[in-house]
Amino acid sequence: MNHDAIIFDIDDTLYNSTRLSISARENAIEAMIDAGLPVDRETGTELLAGVIQRLGANSNRHFDELLEAVGVPPSSRLIAAGIVAYHNTKPVYLRPFEETIPTLLRLRDLGYRLGVITNGMAVKQWEKLIRLGIQHFFHAAIVSETAGMEKPDPEIFTVCCEQLQVEPAVSVYVGNDPHTDVFGANRVGMLSIRMRKGKHADVEPKDDAYRAVHDIHRLGDLLELIDAGVIGLPSAAEPQP
Amino acid sequence: MNHDAIIFDIDDTLYNSTRLSISARENAIEAMIDAGLPVDRETGTELLAGVIQRLGANSNRHFDELLEAVGVPPSSRLIAAGIVAYHNTKPVYLRPFEETIPTLLRLRDLGYRLGVITNGMAVKQWEKLIRLGIQHFFHAAIVSETAGMEKPDPEIFTVCCEQLQVEPAVSVYVGNDPHTDVFGANRVGMLSIRMRKGKHADVEPKDDAYRAVHDIHRLGDLLELIDAGVIGLPSAAEPQP
Repeated sequence: MNHDAIIFDIDDTLYNSTRLSISARENAIEAMIDAGLPVDRETGTELLAGVIQRLGANSNRHFDELLEAVGVPPSSRLIAAGIVAYHNTKPVYLRPFEETIPTLLRLRDLGYRLGVITNGMAVKQWEKLIRLGIQHFFHAAIVSETAGMEKPDPEIFTVCCEQLQVEPAVSVYVGNDPHTDVFGANRVGMLSIRMRKGKHADVEPKDDAYRAVHDIHRLGDLLELIDAGVIGLPSAAEPQP
Repeated sequence: MNHDAIIFDIDDTLYNSTRLSISARENAIEAMIDAGLPVDRETGTELLAGVIQRLGANSNRHFDELLEAVGVPPSSRLIAAGIVAYHNTKPVYLRPFEETIPTLLRLRDLGYRLGVITNGMAVKQWEKLIRLGIQHFFHAAIVSETAGMEKPDPEIFTVCCEQLQVEPAVSVYVGNDPHTDVFGANRVGMLSIRMRKGKHADVEPKDDAYRAVHDIHRLGDLLELIDAGVIGLPSAAEPQP
């Protein structure tokens, strides 16, 4: 059969999001200590992890609440130190996996429609596509905040397919999270591919609904799945009858 | 006479704020056009300047309102493109003047107490001190947002002097804006030094209240004013009776 579209998750699928988070938090804590936060590095890192778990990754009050957790009064200096260090980490670690750009280019050459479906804040997720240098690669990009729904809602997958003008049944979805990416793609009948990266890498699916058709460990593996016929070529790329 | 403290403005006094603003806006417009903003560079730059003038420099809605001015619907992608380009400009242009750090070090060596008084948002102004690499140089730093008052309010100058444990009469203030820096310092009896940099560089004082005791063109000129006895040495640095 043919596959006309390949749609991607961003974090830990197109770049090493886990490494960025760890580095950014470490750098922020070190900078805040340098600016006067009275805490050792290990305690600071633990307290920050607790704050992020409690507020969620998309809050903008992580550093404010870290100060509270450490027991110091609000300080713009300390917060600025954390923010600057956090931002300075991005040019270093918000980089594509080494196979991301070559693989995306090859998939476009082969005639696939390419898409992105990502959960998160719209400006932050677009920032990632821009900093990764891949904002122009996709024929559609859906961010949950803008769409008003998030993975694994089947609707966010079908909205992306509509924008790509393809059916879910001839679409491939590549993501690293069995509970949002794989489960969601399976529900709408897409070919699910699980990237074994990041914090979910070793999580085993609790049942078939969370099991991908194929697991991969690098984005370049997609090209092998195409060679093996697991992912079909685009219908437009084949000789028409 | 002695002078015990030298207090500084930040923007266009310790670094080239005007150049940073111009570059950051240019880069933001180019990135937004690259991301799809349907406007030419010149028109985009003009519209953005108008938005910044209308909302003030400290709004966080510049890019949102730029889209409105161009007549396109809200777009996280376009806004993210502007924000990323803006942030990417900072490591390049948020750098001290070449004489800033050597001069500050020399002034500390001579025994002066050093301070900062700056108008602006607390986190943004601290970000500047941190990125400039000078956050540890000052014995006191007052940001208007935190202080709840701004230059030229005499109170913000006296609060800084209190923190430095010096009297205004034995303090020097160095800033580039005749209406906030010079006028404010003159009102509390500090020795006012005007740095002729940035957008106010060519503004002539409307009367003596806005006229600095001395104008300088580079921070290193302070050392010459000390050699000439215009700025006195710190009392602690001289032989005690």
